[in-house]
Amino acid sequence: MTDDDIRLAERLADAAGAAIRPFFRARFDLEQKADASPVTEADRAAEAAMRAIIEAERPEDGIIGEEYGVVRGEAERLWVLDPIDGTRAFVTGRPLFGTLIALLEGGSPVLGIIDQPILGERWIGAAGRPTRFNGGIVGTRHCTDLAEARFGSTAPAAFSVDENAAYARVTRDARDAIWGGDCYNYGLVALGQLDGVIEANLKLYDFAALVPVVEGAGGVMRDWQGAPLDRGSDGRVVALGDARLLDPVLERLGG
Amino acid sequence: MTDDDIRLAERLADAAGAAIRPFFRARFDLEQKADASPVTEADRAAEAAMRAIIEAERPEDGIIGEEYGVVRGEAERLWVLDPIDGTRAFVTGRPLFGTLIALLEGGSPVLGIIDQPILGERWIGAAGRPTRFNGGIVGTRHCTDLAEARFGSTAPAAFSVDENAAYARVTRDARDAIWGGDCYNYGLVALGQLDGVIEANLKLYDFAALVPVVEGAGGVMRDWQGAPLDRGSDGRVVALGDARLLDPVLERLGG
Repeated sequence: MTDDDIRLAERLADAAGAAIRPFFRARFDLEQKADASPVTEADRAAEAAMRAIIEAERPEDGIIGEEYGVVRGEAERLWVLDPIDGTRAFVTGRPLFGTLIALLEGGSPVLGIIDQPILGERWIGAAGRPTRFNGGIVGTRHCTDLAEARFGSTAPAAFSVDENAAYARVTRDARDAIWGGDCYNYGLVALGQLDGVIEANLKLYDFAALVPVVEGAGGVMRDWQGAPLDRGSDGRVVALGDARLLDPVLERLGG
Repeated sequence: MTDDDIRLAERLADAAGAAIRPFFRARFDLEQKADASPVTEADRAAEAAMRAIIEAERPEDGIIGEEYGVVRGEAERLWVLDPIDGTRAFVTGRPLFGTLIALLEGGSPVLGIIDQPILGERWIGAAGRPTRFNGGIVGTRHCTDLAEARFGSTAPAAFSVDENAAYARVTRDARDAIWGGDCYNYGLVALGQLDGVIEANLKLYDFAALVPVVEGAGGVMRDWQGAPLDRGSDGRVVALGDARLLDPVLERLGG
């Protein structure tokens, strides 16, 4: 991962944002995917725009995208794209969805962008560098006591019954919990506004970009067993602003 | 309710926004109220600023505010103030909280403002006039089929067990439902982005301003029995972009 990769990732985010903005709060027909998640024209236009740039400038890298699948999936370097994370937020007019762009090397995320194209907010995380938010260095906040921690998670319906119970074991001992938010919650962890996010059933394109953002800001991201997140993770994730909360959180998630 | 009242309400929103903005995403100590909801310095500064203007310019009107209680509560005209609706959103850095300002005449809301001071978004509803969003006239969307409707509600924890079951009876027959949002959801109904909001345990200052905004945009707001909302309502509210959904929704809420 080089400075050039970071610049390229920013250009991908620029292209996605330009494709998305005309559709926000516009009226359009929604298509129904097999899994019933909303898909918009914006989603497809944004991913196509990003793929065109990668194909032109990094023709040997692989691509995994939410809308158009996998190309060169065995490449050492893989771009992982989610043009609109938080499609429910998007289709209801909330400007808290995000474009997620990650670069994986050897299956592990080394570069991640969360871009909110309506508010003009962009988080950039890169392995070994401090996370930047709209250009400035940001950091998570210290929180060593679970009872003081504020958590976020997008929706109870994204958890199984057992996973909801596990999440409730964490939040009943925490200060507070808030629903909704999608990728934006992880950005808020990086800004020191939220102490943790716990989710399940995420796809690689939902979480890969978040890891460098959260960890570059001083936090930690793991699966529910405490293992680092990579291409093979099962989609259960924990993001914490302060790694000292990891043990008490994992203990409660484990039952 | 006069044009002068609308101008005054806008000045209240301006004053509240100026008081709130410096605190957004700043680090500050949170106080614990008896009901454990977060209260911020911003909340108090914003309500104090609004009260000072009302006392100076409408000394005979009553005031009901979230932070500082009731003065002249028996007045025919009552200003109802919630400086930060969505304090959880505010303290976690989400720019979707709102300042709510209502004017009641004879106990019924005739003027309402939802103001989002970070994004610079303002809805103004006034009885007998079309709702305006940042100056432009806006409207709800047609939705006559519950199966096509998208609903929002802030949090399952704001419902009792029975109320959660009632809400689930609506949303299981709807197209989709999203959590989080507070007053912003009602603004999205007025913009035709969301078809309904159903909540419970709201206080007068949580819902009074929403009624003129939603109804002036072509929607309807009622309690769970279908009665208009006023000072005596029990805090269970339904907002719909299309009044033709009222019967199927109330039927499901009733069990």
